[in-house]
Amino acid sequence: MELSDLDTAALVQRRERLAARLGSTPALLFAGAPRVRHYAANPFPFRAASHFFYLVGASIEGAALLVEGGRSVLFLPEKPADDELWHGPTPGAEAIARAVGCEVRGISALDAAISAKPVATLPCPDAEGREQQALALGRSVRAGELKGDDLHLAGAMIDIRIAHDALAVREMTSAAEAADAAHRAGMRATRPGRFERDVRAAMESTFIARGMSTSYEPIITTHGEVLHNHGHANLLSEGDLVLADVGAESLGGFASDVTRCWPVSGRFSATQRAIYEIVLEAQRRAIARVAPGVRYRDVHLESSRAIAEGLVAVGVLRGDPSEIVEVGAHALFFPHGVGHLIGMDVHDMEDLGDLAGYAAGRSRSAQFGLSYLRLDRDLAPGMAVTIEPGIYVVPAILNDPRFSALVARFVDREALARFSDVRGIRIEDDVLVTSSGQEVLTASIPKTLDEVEAAMRG
Amino acid sequence: MELSDLDTAALVQRRERLAARLGSTPALLFAGAPRVRHYAANPFPFRAASHFFYLVGASIEGAALLVEGGRSVLFLPEKPADDELWHGPTPGAEAIARAVGCEVRGISALDAAISAKPVATLPCPDAEGREQQALALGRSVRAGELKGDDLHLAGAMIDIRIAHDALAVREMTSAAEAADAAHRAGMRATRPGRFERDVRAAMESTFIARGMSTSYEPIITTHGEVLHNHGHANLLSEGDLVLADVGAESLGGFASDVTRCWPVSGRFSATQRAIYEIVLEAQRRAIARVAPGVRYRDVHLESSRAIAEGLVAVGVLRGDPSEIVEVGAHALFFPHGVGHLIGMDVHDMEDLGDLAGYAAGRSRSAQFGLSYLRLDRDLAPGMAVTIEPGIYVVPAILNDPRFSALVARFVDREALARFSDVRGIRIEDDVLVTSSGQEVLTASIPKTLDEVEAAMRG
Repeated sequence: MELSDLDTAALVQRRERLAARLGSTPALLFAGAPRVRHYAANPFPFRAASHFFYLVGASIEGAALLVEGGRSVLFLPEKPADDELWHGPTPGAEAIARAVGCEVRGISALDAAISAKPVATLPCPDAEGREQQALALGRSVRAGELKGDDLHLAGAMIDIRIAHDALAVREMTSAAEAADAAHRAGMRATRPGRFERDVRAAMESTFIARGMSTSYEPIITTHGEVLHNHGHANLLSEGDLVLADVGAESLGGFASDVTRCWPVSGRFSATQRAIYEIVLEAQRRAIARVAPGVRYRDVHLESSRAIAEGLVAVGVLRGDPSEIVEVGAHALFFPHGVGHLIGMDVHDMEDLGDLAGYAAGRSRSAQFGLSYLRLDRDLAPGMAVTIEPGIYVVPAILNDPRFSALVARFVDREALARFSDVRGIRIEDDVLVTSSGQEVLTASIPKTLDEVEAAMRG
Repeated sequence: MELSDLDTAALVQRRERLAARLGSTPALLFAGAPRVRHYAANPFPFRAASHFFYLVGASIEGAALLVEGGRSVLFLPEKPADDELWHGPTPGAEAIARAVGCEVRGISALDAAISAKPVATLPCPDAEGREQQALALGRSVRAGELKGDDLHLAGAMIDIRIAHDALAVREMTSAAEAADAAHRAGMRATRPGRFERDVRAAMESTFIARGMSTSYEPIITTHGEVLHNHGHANLLSEGDLVLADVGAESLGGFASDVTRCWPVSGRFSATQRAIYEIVLEAQRRAIARVAPGVRYRDVHLESSRAIAEGLVAVGVLRGDPSEIVEVGAHALFFPHGVGHLIGMDVHDMEDLGDLAGYAAGRSRSAQFGLSYLRLDRDLAPGMAVTIEPGIYVVPAILNDPRFSALVARFVDREALARFSDVRGIRIEDDVLVTSSGQEVLTASIPKTLDEVEAAMRG
C-alpha cells in the first residue's frame, strides 16, 4: 500500500479509540520482523503484526507504535547505510508522519521514551519480533500468557478491532472482490485432465495481478473431506467435485475467506446436487440468523439443524433432527464450527487465543464438533464473521471407535454409499453484522447450482 | 514432493559422504518450524532447513536427522490427536523410513539418543527451529557464531553440497525449466497499459501450475536500477524496459535464479540495444571463463572489463578499461558481484555467512563493487553459480560524494544522458561447472535481442 493511499483520519481515530479504553497505561505495539525463507537475506514479503498494522495502516519492518494518552509516537528503524543504493528512494520520516498522522522518531529513542514506567504490549506472532519486544521491555513476552496490563490492552484492542470501521469494511470489500475474481477464474480453469494446481494457478494469479496475496494457504482439492488439505497434486477427473477455500488479503491488510465447490465436468450429478442443496440451505438459514444480539453459537446450531434435517430427508441420517443435533450426531458429517471472526486475520485476533472469539464467561464445549466452534459471542453491528457449513464423508470419523455407537444408531451406511461421488462440500461467505441484520460481503460470487454451472461455462 | 518420488539411493549416498567427512562426532540437523503468517495456525507453506532437506529429501516439520558414523536416524514428531480427521491419511513411519532409506524413531527418543556425547549442529534459519535445537542440545545455537564441532560440520556440509550430485542437477534442471516457462509467459504478458503485477501474475502462475513456488521474492520492475525492488505497482509504458529477476524452487527444493529484460513495446530502442549488447557480451565472456580451476573473482573481473570496454565504446565511460576496472569505476554502473553459488538456496549456503562463498584465506575486498562479490573460490566440477552482470544508472551512486572524484574523472554525463531510456539491465543464468568447462542450465530461455523480441510476439 502506498503511503498516499492511507486514510489518515481513520487511523488517528483508531488510535484515539484505543487510548480512550486504555486509561493511563501506555501501549507499545511492534510490527515484527520478516519471516526467513531459507536464510536471513531471503525472507517472505513482510507484513506487520495485525495490531500494529491496524493502528498504523502500513507494514513497516522493525517499527513500534507507542500509544500514550491522546498521543501516539511511531518509532522507525534507522535506514541502513546505502539503503537508497539498493532500494531506491523511499519515504522519509516526515512523509510517514504525515500519512500515519502521528509523531515519528528513530527507534533508538524508544528506550528513553518507555523507561521508568510500565508499558503494556501484545506478543508479535514471529519469534524474532518477540525477541525485539523482550529486549525493549526487559521482560519476556509470550502468546498465551497474557496478564495484567497486557491482558487489559488485549481487551481494548479486541473492543476496537471487533467493530469494523468504514476503512475496515472498504478493505474487506476489496478482499471480497478479489475472491470473486479468483473463484470465477478457478471455475473457468477447471476441466478433466488438469490438476488441482492448475486451478490454483488461475485463482492465485488474480490476487497477484491486484498486488494482493492469499490471506491463508489455499485449499483447492478434489478431496474436500480432508479438511486441512494443502496439497494440489491430484488430477481432476470427470465426476469429481473441486472444493476451493481461497481468500485474498487486501492491500490494507484485511482478509476474505471464501469456499465454493464445483463439478469438474461442469455439471453437478444428482447426488452432488442433493448434498449441495442441503449445505446451501444450512448456509442460508445461518446467514438469515446473523443479526445484532444473536448468539453466534445459535447460528452454528441453526446450520447444524438444517444439515441434520437435510441428511435425514435424503436418508443418510435416521431419527429426529433435534435429537441428532442435541447428541452431536450431525457432527459426524459436519465436524467443524460454522465460522469465525474475520478481519485483518482470517481467524481474526486468534493470536489472542479465545479472548476475541469467546465472550467473558463462555468457553468451548466438550462435545465433538461444537468443541471446534471458534466464536461464541453475541453478535453486534460491525462484527464480521464467516458462515461456512459443510458436509463431509470422513472415514477417520465414521470408523472412529469413539463414535461407533453414534454411527450405528444414526447413520444409514447403505444410503450413504449412494452418495459416493460426494466427499466433501463446504460453502463459505463473509458476513458483516449491520444494525438491522447482515450484509454478505462476498455475495457476488456464484453460489447456487445454476450460478456455478453458468460461471464454469465462462 | 511425494515420498514415492524420492531418490533413496542418492539420499543414502549423501549421508554416507557426510558421515565419512565427519569422523566420530555425530551431527544432528533439524528441519525447523513453519513460518507464522499472522498467527500460529496460519503459517506459510513449510519448507525444511536446507541442510536437513538435502540429506532427507523431504520437508518434514519438526523432524531431526542424526548422522552418526555410517548410521542415520530420522526422528519424527508424533502426529497430533485427530491428525487423520483434519489432514487425511498421511504416510506412516515405515513408509518414510523406506523412502528416506534410514531408521525412523519418534522425536521423544531423541534425548536418549544424544545424551552423554557432544553433538554437532547447524542453526535452523527460523527462530522457532533454533529454540527447538537449543532445547534438545542444552546450549544456544546461533548463526554467525559457529565454532568447534559445529564449524567442522559446516565445513563437511559445504564440501558435499557444493559439488552437486546427479539428483541435485536434475532438480536444478527442473527449476530452470520452470523459469523458462515463467520468463516466456512474462514476455508474452507484457504490453503498454498493464502493470508490473500483471507480468508477475503471468510468471508466478507458471510455477504454481507446476506445484512449485518462487525461490526468492521476484523482482519485476520498470526500474531495474533499483536493485532490490520488490514493488510491482508501476504502469508499463511504451519505451520502458521490464527487468524480471524470477526463479523457481523445484519440488525437491532446488533453486533457479534468472534475470531477463525486455521492452514493453516489444522492440528494443537503439540505446537499449546498445547497452543490452554490452551486458550480454559481459555475460558471454564471464560464462566462457567458467571452468574447473578458475578463480570466480576472475570471472567477475572478466565481466567487469567487458562492461568497462563497452561503456567506453559508447562514450559513457572515458579512459582505459583496465584502469577503470582497477580503480573500480565500472562499479558506478555495475555495483554488485557477477554472481554467487546456487543450489538448495538461491545464494547457496548463505546461512553459513561467507564460509561457503569464500575459500579459506580469502575475504571480501574493501573496494566498492568488489565488496559485494559473494563468491571467491576456485571453481570445481559440480559447482553451480549464477552469472549475472548488469548496467544500472543509479542516481544514489552517481550523486554520492564518496564517488564524485571517480565520476568526474571517468563518466561523461552528456553521453550518459543519451541513454535515458536505459535505467537498469541485468542478464542472469545458472551455470554448472563441468569437468571440461561449463553447462548453462537455463540456456533455453530467450536471451539475445532477437530471441527476446520473438518470444514477446508469442
